[in-house]
Amino acid sequence: MLHWLKHYRRELLAGDISAGLVVAMMMIPQGTAYALVAGLPPVVGIYASILPPIIYALFGSSMTQSVGPMAIISLMTATVIGPLAPAGSALAGVLAAQLALISGAVLLLCGVLRMGFLANFFSRPVMSGFTVGSALVIAFDQLHTLLGAELPHLHAPSAAMGVTALLLLVLSKQYLAGLLKRCGMPAGVADIAAKLAPMLVVLGGIVLMATTDLAAMGVRTTGTIPGGLPHLNLASSSAHWKPLLQPGLLIGFIIFLMSMSAAQSLALKRNEKLVSNHELIGLGAANVASALTGGFPVTGSLSRSAVNFAAGANTPLASLITAALLACALMAPTGWLSLLPLPVLAATIIVAVLGLLELGILRTAWQYDRGDVLAWGATCLGVLVLGVEAGVVVGVALSMGTLIWRASRPHIAVLGRIAGTEHFRNVERYPAETRPELLVLRIDANLFFGNMEAVAERIECELATHASARHLVLVMTAVSSIDTSALYAMSELNQSLKRRGIGLHLAEVKGPVLDRLRNSELLRELNGRLFLSTAIACDHLQTAKDVA
Amino acid sequence: MLHWLKHYRRELLAGDISAGLVVAMMMIPQGTAYALVAGLPPVVGIYASILPPIIYALFGSSMTQSVGPMAIISLMTATVIGPLAPAGSALAGVLAAQLALISGAVLLLCGVLRMGFLANFFSRPVMSGFTVGSALVIAFDQLHTLLGAELPHLHAPSAAMGVTALLLLVLSKQYLAGLLKRCGMPAGVADIAAKLAPMLVVLGGIVLMATTDLAAMGVRTTGTIPGGLPHLNLASSSAHWKPLLQPGLLIGFIIFLMSMSAAQSLALKRNEKLVSNHELIGLGAANVASALTGGFPVTGSLSRSAVNFAAGANTPLASLITAALLACALMAPTGWLSLLPLPVLAATIIVAVLGLLELGILRTAWQYDRGDVLAWGATCLGVLVLGVEAGVVVGVALSMGTLIWRASRPHIAVLGRIAGTEHFRNVERYPAETRPELLVLRIDANLFFGNMEAVAERIECELATHASARHLVLVMTAVSSIDTSALYAMSELNQSLKRRGIGLHLAEVKGPVLDRLRNSELLRELNGRLFLSTAIACDHLQTAKDVA
Repeated sequence: MLHWLKHYRRELLAGDISAGLVVAMMMIPQGTAYALVAGLPPVVGIYASILPPIIYALFGSSMTQSVGPMAIISLMTATVIGPLAPAGSALAGVLAAQLALISGAVLLLCGVLRMGFLANFFSRPVMSGFTVGSALVIAFDQLHTLLGAELPHLHAPSAAMGVTALLLLVLSKQYLAGLLKRCGMPAGVADIAAKLAPMLVVLGGIVLMATTDLAAMGVRTTGTIPGGLPHLNLASSSAHWKPLLQPGLLIGFIIFLMSMSAAQSLALKRNEKLVSNHELIGLGAANVASALTGGFPVTGSLSRSAVNFAAGANTPLASLITAALLACALMAPTGWLSLLPLPVLAATIIVAVLGLLELGILRTAWQYDRGDVLAWGATCLGVLVLGVEAGVVVGVALSMGTLIWRASRPHIAVLGRIAGTEHFRNVERYPAETRPELLVLRIDANLFFGNMEAVAERIECELATHASARHLVLVMTAVSSIDTSALYAMSELNQSLKRRGIGLHLAEVKGPVLDRLRNSELLRELNGRLFLSTAIACDHLQTAKDVA
Repeated sequence: MLHWLKHYRRELLAGDISAGLVVAMMMIPQGTAYALVAGLPPVVGIYASILPPIIYALFGSSMTQSVGPMAIISLMTATVIGPLAPAGSALAGVLAAQLALISGAVLLLCGVLRMGFLANFFSRPVMSGFTVGSALVIAFDQLHTLLGAELPHLHAPSAAMGVTALLLLVLSKQYLAGLLKRCGMPAGVADIAAKLAPMLVVLGGIVLMATTDLAAMGVRTTGTIPGGLPHLNLASSSAHWKPLLQPGLLIGFIIFLMSMSAAQSLALKRNEKLVSNHELIGLGAANVASALTGGFPVTGSLSRSAVNFAAGANTPLASLITAALLACALMAPTGWLSLLPLPVLAATIIVAVLGLLELGILRTAWQYDRGDVLAWGATCLGVLVLGVEAGVVVGVALSMGTLIWRASRPHIAVLGRIAGTEHFRNVERYPAETRPELLVLRIDANLFFGNMEAVAERIECELATHASARHLVLVMTAVSSIDTSALYAMSELNQSLKRRGIGLHLAEVKGPVLDRLRNSELLRELNGRLFLSTAIACDHLQTAKDVA
C-alpha cells in the first residue's frame, strides 16, 4: 500500500501528469455516457470517477489501472435497477449506490478471505463471448437515443446529429492519428491526441446546441448538471436491499473479472506483478467509496487504462491527478455540460463499446479448439437472448462444464517394457512388451471427484480386454493429488479387485500423495503392494509368479 | 434396452419374484409417506410407483435400481409447489405432475446430448452434506405430524401413537433381524423380513384406528384413497409453467445425482456396468411417465434399491412385478388404506430419512482432507439455513470452488540433472545439479484457464530467484492438454521472455499436445526450440553457450 509513493522519483512526474490530464478529458464524456447506460443522472458518472480511483490508488496493486465507470458494469446496473425505479430518478441513484455498496462489500470480503482464485472461474473464450454479447446489447440499446426515437421511426434533427457524430468518431478512430502524424506531430503524441476525439465531438455538440435552435426542434440534452462535489450519500431505503443482494454478488464478480483482465494485459507489458487479493481489496474499497459519494458500481476499464498507460502513467499518481481535475471541473460552472446533446453521447457510447468487439480469439480457437468456439457462441447468445445476468451464469456454467467434461476423459496409457531396459512406455506409441498376467496402467491426471468415475470405468474396460491379468499395477507418476471422493473410489476398486482375486499395486507414488495416503485406510487394506518403481513392481510380480 | 429379457434364464425368476413382492410391501407405506412429504394426496405416491419403474426397466441400465418416490426429491417438490398451491389440493397434484414432466424432459434432453458427465458435478463430501441436511429438514418437518400439533404443543393420542410407532420402528431396525435369526430363521430371510417392519407397523396402526375411537379423539388419517388405476393426466394449467422451469432443472439434476450414486454402489457389488447416458434416458422417460399418470418426480432410491438387491432381484423383472402388485392393490378395495394414521406415517418417514444420516465420510475426510469436512459442513448448513434448492447451488459452487482452488495451485518442480546420468529430478527431493544460465521447470498439470495464471506467476517467481537464467526449459511430460486460454497465456509468456532476452524451450511435449500446438501460432513464434528430451535440451543449450 502506497509502496509506489515511498519510491517516487521526480522523473516519473511528467508521465503521470500528462496521463492524468488525458484521462480526465476522456472521463467527462465517458462518465456521463456510462451513467446514461446505467439509467442514472449524468453527473453520477463524474461522481463515480473522483473518490473511487483515489481509494483504489491506496489499496490496489496495478500501477496503471484506471478505475471508474465501465460500459458492461453500467449495463448490469441498469438491468438490476431498471425494474425497480424510473431511469434518471432519485430512487435510481440511491439504488445504484446501494448496489455499489453491496458489490464493494462482497469484493472486500473475498479479498479478506484471500479468494483471488475466483478470477479463474471464466475461460478466455467465455469472457470474450460475454464481453461481445454485452457490447452488442449496449450498442443496440443506444440506437434509439442516437436516432432520437424508437425504431423504425426517427427524429430527423437528432438522427442527423447522432449519425454525424458517429461518423466523425469512427473516422477519427481510424485515421486521426495517422493524419496528425503526417502533419508532423510525433507518433506518441498523435496517438494520444486521437483519443481525445470524443471530447472534441462532445464539445462540438455543445457549441451546436448553444448556437442553434436544435433544442427547440426536439434534440434532447443531458439537462441540468448540479455543480459542486458529491455529498456523502448513505443509502437509506432499506426496503430495496433484498432484491439487490444477489445481483450485487454477480456484479461484484464481474467487476473483479473485468478489472483483472484489464490490469493483467497491462502488467504483462511492464513485467509488473498483480496481487489478485490486493485487487479484490482495492476494487471493493473503491466501490464502497463510490457508494458513499453518490456514485454507482465501478471497475477498471481496459480501454481507459490502456490510454492511461499509453499517455505515460507510471504510478497511480496519474489517477489522483485525473480525480483532482474532475473535482475542479465540478466546482467550476457546469452549465455548459447541461447542453450536451444525447444523440452525440449515444454515438460516443456506441463507438466505445464497438471497441470491445475483439474477435481475434475466435480465429485462434477455430484453428485450435472448436469446443471453445462453441463456448464463445453460447455465452454471447446467452447474453443477447437471456440478458446480461443470466449470461454470467451461462458463462460460469460453460466454463465449469468444459472443465468437468475434459476431466471426465482422463488420459490413461497401457504401459509395456522397452525390451532390455527399465523403461516403460505407452504400448500404442512404442514397441513395448507386455505380459498376459500383468496389466500396467499409467494414470495421467490428478484423481478427484470429476474424473474418478471415468478412471474406474477405463480400468474396468482394460481389465475386460486383458482378461488373463492377475495383477494390476497403477503407475502414479503424474498423480499429484487424490481427493476424498477419489479415495473412496480407489477403496471400492480395491475391494472389487480383491473379490475377483486380482492384485492392486501402486508404483511411483509421489511423496506428498503418499504422505496423505498414510492417513487413510486404503493403504492398510490394499490388496497388493506399494512399489518404488514400475520395473521393481514387474520384476517382483514376475518372480512371485515363477515361485508359485 | 431389454438386453436382460433376451438372456433371461429360469433360475433368475425366484429371486425376482421374492424381491418384487418385498419391495411392493415396502412401497405402500413409503409411497404414501413421500407423497405426504411432497404435500400431495397419498395415492399420488402409489401412482408414481407403477408406470415409472416399468418405463425405467425398458430404458435404464441398472439391473437392481428401484425407481419411484424418494424423500429428498419429495422435499424439493414440496419446496417448489408449496408456495403455489395448498398442500393436498388438486392444483398441487397438477403442478407436481408438471414438475415431473419438466424434470423428465430435461433428463431426456441431457441423455440425448450425451451429458452423462454432469454426474461428476458434486464431490462425495458435498453430496453427503446435501443428503444429511435434507434428511434433517424432512425429519424436522414431520415432527408436528408425529406429535399431532405444532411444537411446543402436542395432541396426546396422536403423540402417543406416533412415538410408539417410532420406537417400534427404531427397535425393529436395530434388533428384529437378530431376533428372527435366533428364532431359527435363515440369516438372509431374517434380514429381508425385518425390512417389512414399516408395513407391519402401518397395518397395526390401521387396525388400531378401525377398532378404537382414536379417530373421534382427533388422530388424523390419510383419508379417502380413490381406487382404480391412475388416469392419463396431461397437466393443463399453462399459467404455472414458468415458475416451475428453473426448479424443474434443479430437480432433474438431483434426480440424476441421487439415482447414479444409488445405482453405482449396487453395480459395484456385482461388477455390473452402468451407462450414465442410458440412466439419463431411463430416468427422464420414467419421470415423463410419472407425469402422465398423475404422479410426481421420481428417482432411484438407495435404501429401496438395496432392499431389492438383498431380496434377490436379478433383473428389472423384479420392478415389473412390484409395479403389477401395486396396480392390483389399487384395483382391490382401498378403504382400509384410508384409515392409515398420519402420526404412524410420520414415524416411518423419520426412521427412513434418519437412515440417510451416513456420517462415515466425515471421519474419513477428517483424517484425510479437512477441506472436505468444511465443504460437507457448508453444504449441510446451506440446506438447513437457505433451503434445499439453494443447497444444491451451494453444493455445486463448493465443488467447483474446491476444484478451481486446487487447480490454482499446480505442482511445478525445478529440475536438476542427476550427476552422470540423463535423468532429471526435482531438486528439492534429489541431489540434482543445476546450472545458473539454465532453468528447467516440470509442469505437473494440464494447462487450462483455471491454473494458467498460477503457472505464469510461479514461472515469474522462479525466474526472479534464478536471475542469471538465460534459458527456460519447460518439461511437458505431465501436460496432456493445453486449452485456448492457456495457449494465450503461453504466447504472452513467450513474448514477455523474448523482450527480456530469455529463451523459452519446450521439452518432452506429448504427441497429442504437439499435434494441437501445430495449429497455433505459439510454435511458429516460439522464442526457443522444441526438444525431444530434457537431456538433449540441456546438452544443446550448454553447447550453444560454449560456442558463443
